[in-house]
Amino acid sequence: MIDTANKENSLGIAETQIIKLTLPQEGFQLEKGGTLHEIDVAYESYGTINNGKDNVVLICHALTGDAHAAGSSANSEEPDGWWDDMIGPGKGIDTNIHQVICTNILGGCKGTTGPASVNPETGKAYGSSFPKITVADIVEVQRLLLQQLGITKLAALVGGSFGGMQILEWLIRHSEEVERAVIIASAASLTTQALAFDIVGRHAITSDPNWNNGDYYNSNQPIAGLSGARKIAHITYLSQQLMSAKFGREKQTEWMDADADFQQSLENKFGTYFQIESYLEYQGKKFIQRFDANSYLHITLAMDEYDTKERYGSLEKAFEKITSRLLIVSLSGDWLFTRQQSADMVKALVSTGKRVSYFHLEGEAGHDAFLTHIHDLKRIISAFLIQPEREKCTHVHHKIPNKEKLTRFKQILKMIPDNSRVLDLGCGKGSLLNMLRQHHNASGIGVEIEIEALIAALTKGCDVLLEDIDDGLKMIPDKTFDVAVLSETLQTIKRPRVLLQQILRVADKALISFPNFASIGVRTNLLFNGRMPKGKQIPFEWYNTPNIHLFTLADFLDLCEKEEINVESIICKGRGLIENALLALGFKNLGASAVIIHISKKEVAHSDTEHAEPQSNTF
Amino acid sequence: MIDTANKENSLGIAETQIIKLTLPQEGFQLEKGGTLHEIDVAYESYGTINNGKDNVVLICHALTGDAHAAGSSANSEEPDGWWDDMIGPGKGIDTNIHQVICTNILGGCKGTTGPASVNPETGKAYGSSFPKITVADIVEVQRLLLQQLGITKLAALVGGSFGGMQILEWLIRHSEEVERAVIIASAASLTTQALAFDIVGRHAITSDPNWNNGDYYNSNQPIAGLSGARKIAHITYLSQQLMSAKFGREKQTEWMDADADFQQSLENKFGTYFQIESYLEYQGKKFIQRFDANSYLHITLAMDEYDTKERYGSLEKAFEKITSRLLIVSLSGDWLFTRQQSADMVKALVSTGKRVSYFHLEGEAGHDAFLTHIHDLKRIISAFLIQPEREKCTHVHHKIPNKEKLTRFKQILKMIPDNSRVLDLGCGKGSLLNMLRQHHNASGIGVEIEIEALIAALTKGCDVLLEDIDDGLKMIPDKTFDVAVLSETLQTIKRPRVLLQQILRVADKALISFPNFASIGVRTNLLFNGRMPKGKQIPFEWYNTPNIHLFTLADFLDLCEKEEINVESIICKGRGLIENALLALGFKNLGASAVIIHISKKEVAHSDTEHAEPQSNTF
Repeated sequence: MIDTANKENSLGIAETQIIKLTLPQEGFQLEKGGTLHEIDVAYESYGTINNGKDNVVLICHALTGDAHAAGSSANSEEPDGWWDDMIGPGKGIDTNIHQVICTNILGGCKGTTGPASVNPETGKAYGSSFPKITVADIVEVQRLLLQQLGITKLAALVGGSFGGMQILEWLIRHSEEVERAVIIASAASLTTQALAFDIVGRHAITSDPNWNNGDYYNSNQPIAGLSGARKIAHITYLSQQLMSAKFGREKQTEWMDADADFQQSLENKFGTYFQIESYLEYQGKKFIQRFDANSYLHITLAMDEYDTKERYGSLEKAFEKITSRLLIVSLSGDWLFTRQQSADMVKALVSTGKRVSYFHLEGEAGHDAFLTHIHDLKRIISAFLIQPEREKCTHVHHKIPNKEKLTRFKQILKMIPDNSRVLDLGCGKGSLLNMLRQHHNASGIGVEIEIEALIAALTKGCDVLLEDIDDGLKMIPDKTFDVAVLSETLQTIKRPRVLLQQILRVADKALISFPNFASIGVRTNLLFNGRMPKGKQIPFEWYNTPNIHLFTLADFLDLCEKEEINVESIICKGRGLIENALLALGFKNLGASAVIIHISKKEVAHSDTEHAEPQSNTF
Repeated sequence: MIDTANKENSLGIAETQIIKLTLPQEGFQLEKGGTLHEIDVAYESYGTINNGKDNVVLICHALTGDAHAAGSSANSEEPDGWWDDMIGPGKGIDTNIHQVICTNILGGCKGTTGPASVNPETGKAYGSSFPKITVADIVEVQRLLLQQLGITKLAALVGGSFGGMQILEWLIRHSEEVERAVIIASAASLTTQALAFDIVGRHAITSDPNWNNGDYYNSNQPIAGLSGARKIAHITYLSQQLMSAKFGREKQTEWMDADADFQQSLENKFGTYFQIESYLEYQGKKFIQRFDANSYLHITLAMDEYDTKERYGSLEKAFEKITSRLLIVSLSGDWLFTRQQSADMVKALVSTGKRVSYFHLEGEAGHDAFLTHIHDLKRIISAFLIQPEREKCTHVHHKIPNKEKLTRFKQILKMIPDNSRVLDLGCGKGSLLNMLRQHHNASGIGVEIEIEALIAALTKGCDVLLEDIDDGLKMIPDKTFDVAVLSETLQTIKRPRVLLQQILRVADKALISFPNFASIGVRTNLLFNGRMPKGKQIPFEWYNTPNIHLFTLADFLDLCEKEEINVESIICKGRGLIENALLALGFKNLGASAVIIHISKKEVAHSDTEHAEPQSNTF
């Protein structure tokens, strides 16, 4: 059966091309002091470059990747590019819109100059004489290639794992040449544990007698060492859960059926029949056929030593000149590049006022999931990359929020000064952020826990962070925003008091809206029915309500008093005749079904702002 | 300065003794078919054996441990036993009460017969001719030693990691000889990931040319391979957090100050200056001095192949004959032996009606924390082990719960039939469980999230499980209990409806007590004060209350109706004259401040039990 749907969005044959870089006479100066006098770069490209030459997406590959990111290689009938699911017509990175380029990195062994290449000075493989390289060297070689192709401005950089580190260095050096950047499952430097695994992997290679200090190209290869290093690394690419689900403690039955001699030799080597053993063995074998031990040593060392923070003093300083818009994605099953490491980058970017969005994708597969489990990742990358196209189009209509919400949002917008930097907590699908940008010339970041809502917000062009507000706004640095908005959310929060403190830590002022549990409707409901109140405002049963901290306007004002929070103003809205009549009479706590309160931090010296209203009429 | 406090609870010099086992003429038959004709066992003992010879605690050591568990070895001034903090006078395992024995395991290299021992048949080291061993073999050798020492009944077995697996096998084979058992950071079989690390470690050894199929005792040792294996394993013993906190990305400054030649050689080998590299190097070097590569191969293989479930069909079947009381402990930072693996053992033990307690200890250190971070572990083990001593003493008085609680507990006890198996959810310090045992001849297990309360309950002799009830009673199998009690807890639960379903999944009947949010006091408070009600029953502020799902008696009965839950009876308690008067008039929902409801699962065919009261008077 021919899968035509698949054929339609396939790129067909894609072949790697090799280009010799035009280098200055003195050669290419490496960061650590070495020089290369010749550099070949292997690359592939998919899709068509536009007239402005500004629709190019550069893919930065991971540790042992190559230029063949998508399509089928000449000798393969099926697509065998390492990210073919992501790149192609109509895919996450859409070759109908973008020209996509992927290069093999410097130091590699798949066409770009590396330790196995011939040293033009000696006519022999570099081996031990190949100079040490850094991430910056890798980036500058990519840039030289682009320049040679006449590309001086990138629509986007996209990459995962070690590719993300290259992107980070790209942005730090040449952000003005990059419109957008997507960094997936990566970090500004490795964790100690990840370093440790790499170190043991390198030891396995360098303690293999065949390694011979790197000069092994005319003799036996250090395959035992390289295979060992790969096995260790491979364990770190999968999550514990995936490994258990995939292999468990299952036995390899073919081996058990094999002849006695083979079994004996397996057992003499303390081999087991576990499937995981044969799987690792297979991964090791496959790897030694396609990769060079010296490349592995050089590239892992470049990765291990990459440390943005150490290099520039702090992430904030490193990111200072970034102008590109960023999308950062971490994966829940990934223990090699952790959520915390992504969050650290996001925090530094928010702190320096950059445009950044962040998604943490659930999924148990592990680090490799950015290659293998990309359903949501595709949608997010597509939403992020296609936006500029969409923004050019004036006919895009987003769903308008319901009337009640719209009224509330309009009221909130009135209270936000022009050009403010706004944090919208529980931003949902980004309606408020979108209205804000259109009407106020203000910039904002939204925080939301619900991923589908957040993808909708990203599609609108909003900058959004996937985070549980209950976790304490960990990605938001102190005093980063002019105004924080918390709309109909406080009652669902586990520790509302802590959240209020956090809000006034990160923003000067806050606008809080909530349902008032003391409105006359609610009170009489409990009095006369003896059941917990329900209704339009509180449409849940007691046992499944997200509203876990019910409170009244009076309760809230009591807390402000206690916490030394200024109440700048209170806007009340009643529902129906009686409540509105009570409001008209000044009985806010009785009359208001819904409330918006403008609060700010009490300064030690009293400010000249409008003060809290007296709280006597909060019956 | 001499630390006398330390001296007082030190064991002083402890020397390893070696004893030759008296074997039958045909030798010791190993499970996998081999035979050993001579077995030496190295062991140490601390404290004095009593006249009944029933106060002995056997310590089962982990993978690379030895018999020197506590005290100072002859050539050391300081205590250097591997678990000296745990074992000694007044310590977690108290040598004033118990005689503690620790043996080096079969296959080891610290005095007990192993691959480096001399094969009596050849007069040379076993090497490649050492037969394959299993956990069962290790256990039977320990037992032979005890028998030879005249010990036929153990007060307890205690061990962590691989030691825990030995204990599990002990219990499956000889539970009648073991009073109690403590299994820490262990499992009934390794995870696939842990297997994978061991496999790569063994490959490192067997691919070292010096290994020579195990016959290396008269030539170069496979130190590169053994060191590599140890480095990999060592990474798995620490948590990612601890490694980051301890080493981060810090550099080893001495090396950087070293002479140029040394630096050059370091760099040629792709070594880094990271502290973690020198730490791993150090761990590898230390290990090759104290351990034998063949022992490492044999013991890790025995560990990897240990699989209680596979051996006996299921954990439940394996545990069928266990009569010992168990304490199982897992550690939060431990990713080598996970919480889930401990929970699986607990579940199977609860399912088969065994006496088991379970603690999950917070702490970021990782697997090795059972050796290095033992503050809470000590207290728990001590509480568990000293109980029999305490039970003999009639003068132990436990703190009596307050009057209100006591009244409630007495009411609940009245509703529990004699000889019931009871699950007390949110058991606190175990007062109800204790009363139950004393007055009802019933057995019970408590579940509680607060560790200090749970240690108090353990001290009273209760069987208790540390678990968040909100997580869905995952450790409790279906239909394991006659009655479940949930006392003043439902309103603090995130998903009360799900919990009710879970409760009736694991128990036939349940007694639920809760504060009624519809009592007249509460209603009038909200009506007249406009603030969320507070008082004796609800003593919290709205923003810090654990009571996140407030509900009324009527609400609860509505839910029972919806969920097809039988309401067998309702006990109401009012507070003050008005409420009690209302109760007398039959107005339960108005009059009851507190309620105990007896519920059961509605059977498809209606049972003959007392049916729910009509709900008309629940105003």
